[in-house]
Amino acid sequence: MRDLLAEETAARAELRQRILSTFRSYGYAQVTTPAFELAEVIERGLLMADRRDVLRFVEPESGEVALLRPDITPQVARIVATTLRDMPGPHRISYEGSIFRRRRGRARTQLQIQQAGVELIHEPGPAADAEVIELAMEACRAVGLSGIKLELAHVGIGRAALEPVPESARATVMECVARKDGAALEEALKAAGVKAGDRKTLSSLLELYGDPSVVKRARRTLRAEAMQEALDALEAVLDRLVDAGLGPHLAVDLGELRGQAYYTGVSFALWADGPGEALGAGGRYDNLLERFGGEGPATGFALNLENLEWALRAQGRAIALDARPRVVLLGDDRNAARALRAAGAETVELRGRSKAQALAFAKAWGFDLVVQSGKNASATRAADAATQPLDLFDETELARRFAWARSTEARTEVM
Amino acid sequence: MRDLLAEETAARAELRQRILSTFRSYGYAQVTTPAFELAEVIERGLLMADRRDVLRFVEPESGEVALLRPDITPQVARIVATTLRDMPGPHRISYEGSIFRRRRGRARTQLQIQQAGVELIHEPGPAADAEVIELAMEACRAVGLSGIKLELAHVGIGRAALEPVPESARATVMECVARKDGAALEEALKAAGVKAGDRKTLSSLLELYGDPSVVKRARRTLRAEAMQEALDALEAVLDRLVDAGLGPHLAVDLGELRGQAYYTGVSFALWADGPGEALGAGGRYDNLLERFGGEGPATGFALNLENLEWALRAQGRAIALDARPRVVLLGDDRNAARALRAAGAETVELRGRSKAQALAFAKAWGFDLVVQSGKNASATRAADAATQPLDLFDETELARRFAWARSTEARTEVM
Repeated sequence: MRDLLAEETAARAELRQRILSTFRSYGYAQVTTPAFELAEVIERGLLMADRRDVLRFVEPESGEVALLRPDITPQVARIVATTLRDMPGPHRISYEGSIFRRRRGRARTQLQIQQAGVELIHEPGPAADAEVIELAMEACRAVGLSGIKLELAHVGIGRAALEPVPESARATVMECVARKDGAALEEALKAAGVKAGDRKTLSSLLELYGDPSVVKRARRTLRAEAMQEALDALEAVLDRLVDAGLGPHLAVDLGELRGQAYYTGVSFALWADGPGEALGAGGRYDNLLERFGGEGPATGFALNLENLEWALRAQGRAIALDARPRVVLLGDDRNAARALRAAGAETVELRGRSKAQALAFAKAWGFDLVVQSGKNASATRAADAATQPLDLFDETELARRFAWARSTEARTEVM
Repeated sequence: MRDLLAEETAARAELRQRILSTFRSYGYAQVTTPAFELAEVIERGLLMADRRDVLRFVEPESGEVALLRPDITPQVARIVATTLRDMPGPHRISYEGSIFRRRRGRARTQLQIQQAGVELIHEPGPAADAEVIELAMEACRAVGLSGIKLELAHVGIGRAALEPVPESARATVMECVARKDGAALEEALKAAGVKAGDRKTLSSLLELYGDPSVVKRARRTLRAEAMQEALDALEAVLDRLVDAGLGPHLAVDLGELRGQAYYTGVSFALWADGPGEALGAGGRYDNLLERFGGEGPATGFALNLENLEWALRAQGRAIALDARPRVVLLGDDRNAARALRAAGAETVELRGRSKAQALAFAKAWGFDLVVQSGKNASATRAADAATQPLDLFDETELARRFAWARSTEARTEVM
């Protein structure tokens, strides 16, 4: 993670606030979990593949291995399976925080990613899947994004399609499907001795991509019972999302074979121009709680805050920040400072500087007004150095001065 | 760090929000820095002693050593000395986030601590010292704490007093002073061959503790020029704090010898009953920026959020949370859910449950109202199961129902 300066920090805080407030409006209770835990605890919730991408250190006193959490979901599963064990379900839990992952073969080899997400636990069925997908979309809307693409898949399709493929050939086959490279796929399948019918099923997945009508097309080519069941489940979720008015955002990708080992049902990702990665992703994972001694179905998602900001920039949008007037108080006057802060201004005290220095300071740091206290108290606008007298202890006058300091004309002049 | 459940997370967020808002009202700009960095960068800002208490890991690709930040101040110093190098001073920077420290010889051997703090950089003199101390107090007040003790010291006193003590004996001597153990101190000083006059100076420090009049007493016993200068500086800050109305909170401890290697002037700590540790601490550190290729005076502090919460509990106070009405919507009615959320209620949809189950769920999770949608829509108070009819799409009626659901009588019955 790089440093965030003042405006970026304020924008990130506002973004996070809007997302968490949306989660809350759906009744999700926010929990906070530690940034690292004993490896043996967190690893219970991780796939073998993910375990390679984790940052570990040896705890010096005990010699035990701790790891920086690469995912918050296993920690939520731990809490639901232990601390909240006796509470009636379903559990609606939200969280926000940093996760830490090694990234291989890139310039940025380590990553701290700020996430916000939810888990809906002990609730099976399409209504639960649709609820979290709708909530992810609501959160994106709450931060001001539009035109998001919502891509759904179902892990059952790929699982059934890959069954006839020998274990040793699966990684190659999955890669060919991900690249939508039909020729390479056919070659890999033949080399692995996969029968013609099964080859046809797998290569049909490359085309089963697009708007929700894909599911109807798929019903004709994907005849296996497990696949038909997966299509039923997917369609039930799609129907609910269309009812919720999300039809124009929906896409289906039956060739999405990732997450096989983790998800157990419908999975989804949110896309927008800009980051080149998903804004967020999630899905149903009905096997996770078992690993922490609990049990029960679950679904959820995590949003990547930096990717959301990236998409906002790409759409030419900025998140609106609560803008208090910002004042430089020249001199050393405790009462004036107190009066300005009480009137709602962010007030910096600048001591031992000239008025010219104070104006330069105000411009450089984006303050609106330089206030001189004392007998001939005055307010000077940073934008154009226009000065007016000021009664520092008259709240009505202060409010008027703040409005004057921030007037559009003044703003325009600064830019 | 332990897990924080929903109420604790909400209280922590409100606490953080009030502190950051106070920092902002003084014109401090909040920055965000990564949780870990290359060891060679962060270690520049750490004392040798602190380097032992840091959690390190080897970055797998590069073989470089990274460390979890044990302090955010060195990162702020890095930003001011690099990214913000060309901005006019003084710099007022705030931050919040987790720091990570090993703790030796205790059950809790590793700690993740949530901090919020400020740095005031490129500003020498007592006005700057007093500003950050006042700001620390304001932040504590903003979260609802009262009766805080503000303990000031000056590193120059101890530095001068320890000068005649041979290096090899200093650790022991400092420990005797910290324990205020006069007999052991005298013995250690004699064994180290310290002369009678210097021994007297050091043992006088044990008594130089109490309200700010201590400084006047100290002027008579601590005659060395460096000590008189330290007392001048301390007194100038105390005078300003008394002017700011903080007189009743002030204490001075000239026997505070810690922080010698880090602080360069006035240092302070905030205390309240409960945590058994300081709520926060800070002071002047004019040598830190040099380590990052910058230069200039600086002062600041960090508050420990968990200790603030502990002190609040010890005072029988709880931070007031923004309380939206919380509703369980029984059934599967998208429009009703939307109407309730639009009216400001946190609305959980509970599907496939009986009304009795919904009421039990509402009580267990602290919801106020169970709403049944449909033709005979009704609202049932979780507290006493009293039911009234409801027009789900009449905002005025909803507001009235929310008030009814949360009425004091109902609340009292739950408790």
